[in-house]
Amino acid sequence: MAITVVGSVAFDSIETPAGRRDRCLGGAATYFSLAASYFTNVRVIAVVGEDFGAEQAAVFNARGIDTQGIERAEGKSFFWKGSYLENLNEAKTHTTELNVFGAFEPKIPDAYRDSEFLFLANIDPVLQRRVRESMPQARLVAGDTMNYWIKDHRPALLEVLKGLDILLINDTEARMLAGNSNLLQAARGVLEMGPRMLVVKHGEYGATIFHKSTQSGGARTFRAPALPLEEVVDPTGAGDSFAGGFFGYLASQPELTPGAFRRAMFYGSVMGSFAVERFGTERLQELSREQIDERFALFRELTHLD
Amino acid sequence: MAITVVGSVAFDSIETPAGRRDRCLGGAATYFSLAASYFTNVRVIAVVGEDFGAEQAAVFNARGIDTQGIERAEGKSFFWKGSYLENLNEAKTHTTELNVFGAFEPKIPDAYRDSEFLFLANIDPVLQRRVRESMPQARLVAGDTMNYWIKDHRPALLEVLKGLDILLINDTEARMLAGNSNLLQAARGVLEMGPRMLVVKHGEYGATIFHKSTQSGGARTFRAPALPLEEVVDPTGAGDSFAGGFFGYLASQPELTPGAFRRAMFYGSVMGSFAVERFGTERLQELSREQIDERFALFRELTHLD
Repeated sequence: MAITVVGSVAFDSIETPAGRRDRCLGGAATYFSLAASYFTNVRVIAVVGEDFGAEQAAVFNARGIDTQGIERAEGKSFFWKGSYLENLNEAKTHTTELNVFGAFEPKIPDAYRDSEFLFLANIDPVLQRRVRESMPQARLVAGDTMNYWIKDHRPALLEVLKGLDILLINDTEARMLAGNSNLLQAARGVLEMGPRMLVVKHGEYGATIFHKSTQSGGARTFRAPALPLEEVVDPTGAGDSFAGGFFGYLASQPELTPGAFRRAMFYGSVMGSFAVERFGTERLQELSREQIDERFALFRELTHLD
Repeated sequence: MAITVVGSVAFDSIETPAGRRDRCLGGAATYFSLAASYFTNVRVIAVVGEDFGAEQAAVFNARGIDTQGIERAEGKSFFWKGSYLENLNEAKTHTTELNVFGAFEPKIPDAYRDSEFLFLANIDPVLQRRVRESMPQARLVAGDTMNYWIKDHRPALLEVLKGLDILLINDTEARMLAGNSNLLQAARGVLEMGPRMLVVKHGEYGATIFHKSTQSGGARTFRAPALPLEEVVDPTGAGDSFAGGFFGYLASQPELTPGAFRRAMFYGSVMGSFAVERFGTERLQELSREQIDERFALFRELTHLD
């Protein structure tokens, strides 16, 4: 099944203990699409500026990603500059320039309208809701958000949550959204806001999926680990790559069984683990499905008793 | 096989968001013994003061723990006062009174000398080493330590590490000991100091065991989760209870296969998850093996694909 994703396509300048890159291709929709493209067809809705050229388009084309929903506007693309010099788990933002993204009005190409899977990456919840309402045929809708929207745009975000099947956020965001420091209680609180499922990303400790029907700490809740890595070169996009692997795998499945969701959690973690091994999207551009499945086997070995 | 454990038996005054307890029974050797007692015979070496009475002794006796190695000295028992009001993951220490522990000279009862399993809980590395050398028959030796010994008593600690099969410490301690912020690299660094295995405890995210023979991030490394809990009443002793479950299960096994170590990691996490459900040792005093194995099954369900 095809996935449509709406979100940012951007340029990032990144500094980490491993080095730096200026204006490399980034953005949540970019990481998501590349990761998901190893599992299914992906269609992107975004806006870019005049600085987005053939080199950037080629990255999407090489992975067969449909970019007719990427609008070209006058001006510059979204730009983010950040560093992870003190803490690889948390970016320090130096610059955020919305540029063409500030006036983004998502337009959905007709060819996208039969997408049964819809991913609303981290953007203004008002836009997330508009896209969701424009694609009523989507039968599984997942989304991401961030602290800024949780704190300052709560009413709009709560409207989005009502229309989501799956919300993917990190620990801090889950606790902030629910106003509860206990993870299990926070998860219950978030699930009462609308989504049937909540994926909480724990950074280097993996991710946990909570279901609305879960009554106790154990039943139906599932935790995928992250892989202890030799070197984390650049954490940028790890969460979006997790989402791409997770949702991409689900979209590739004939049936959304409980087992499919468990394997999807593993594939999410797998794609996140690849993303951080190189700067920007470098690693996600050159994988094979065989490498992905080899790493999936490592994750199984890391967590399974037998 | 019997385990001998050397470490603190103490009184703790604890305040958490769930309430407070004054002078409840605590200490690393206490939590360790109670947790391990559900799997095998446990023998304790410690020192207590005149405030340690029949009520405290009864807690050990009820679990069949051998206390002839608990010496009574003039004065008061080790006392710790701490709180977890801002952060359940990190204790804030208000008072530490070594009392009789300040002049502790571990004495090993003859009846303990056939113990094949030895656990050196978190005490002065000089004492850990002395006990280890006094028990040459021990064929599996594990130990714990803390930031204080890592920072200020490094040479003595390094001597202990040379005689350890398994070191159990938390993330911060592993990174501090190796002087490396990458967990996998830090683990390799610690394993070069002596132990064949390193268990890194991640608090609410579980624990990972690294083996000296591990060449890549995945092979032979194993991660056990922690259970998302409804309420963490009191985190005190969670790490020691993990160690007790882990080492107790190993001591109960006819053969120390790789599978036994994996299951031991799960039992460690299981005992840690029980410990924090009530204040002090309350929960660890009243479990059944059936309850323990039920929770083990929950952990399996939480992490296994099938």
